[in-house]
Amino acid sequence: MKLINEKKPEITYNSQGLVPAIIQNAETKKVLMMAWMNQEAFQLTQTTRQAHFWSRSRNQLWRKGETSGNILAVREVWIDCDGDTLLVMADPAGPACHTENESCFYRLMENGDV
Amino acid sequence: MKLINEKKPEITYNSQGLVPAIIQNAETKKVLMMAWMNQEAFQLTQTTRQAHFWSRSRNQLWRKGETSGNILAVREVWIDCDGDTLLVMADPAGPACHTENESCFYRLMENGDV
Repeated sequence: MKLINEKKPEITYNSQGLVPAIIQNAETKKVLMMAWMNQEAFQLTQTTRQAHFWSRSRNQLWRKGETSGNILAVREVWIDCDGDTLLVMADPAGPACHTENESCFYRLMENGDV
Repeated sequence: MKLINEKKPEITYNSQGLVPAIIQNAETKKVLMMAWMNQEAFQLTQTTRQAHFWSRSRNQLWRKGETSGNILAVREVWIDCDGDTLLVMADPAGPACHTENESCFYRLMENGDV
């Protein structure tokens, strides 16, 4: 029996008003990056269908690709069981990482890494 | 030209000593869950090849599957460009979610959800 949570999904933001959003390539399923959304970024993502985030280092709202052109066209946003993480299925216009790598996860951890 | 970060990967833990770890099914590429690791959980994950986390609600170390049996056998751990998020490629022994769903991300956000 599946214990499905039938309540309408609602985001639980953390004490800084942020929620982590995992970005996955909707076509290839590659995980591209993880970034943070506040409520405004989430709502802009839903209404414009382009991924928006909150930059914790620059302390400002940020439309992914606004300078690089590498926007993330959003197909779907999923929410996890306890409502505190989002999964965004997107079509990237280019490399998602500022290093020009397709994904931010391009380094493998080895034994001994800390 | 790729701006590869050639430094040895090193995890940047947050102010609580935690790092978010995204768990992806190594075979199907489905994103299963997101949970938090402290340094001990990360090191146990690397040495035992079973995913360990830090439970923020129970305030204790937790081996995924220790009660349910639904362990996550770890193939690889990747780290992102700025070192503050991990991506764990794993083979799950069963549903990853405590709701018995395969993935914790089983609810689609609709327009109007907040």
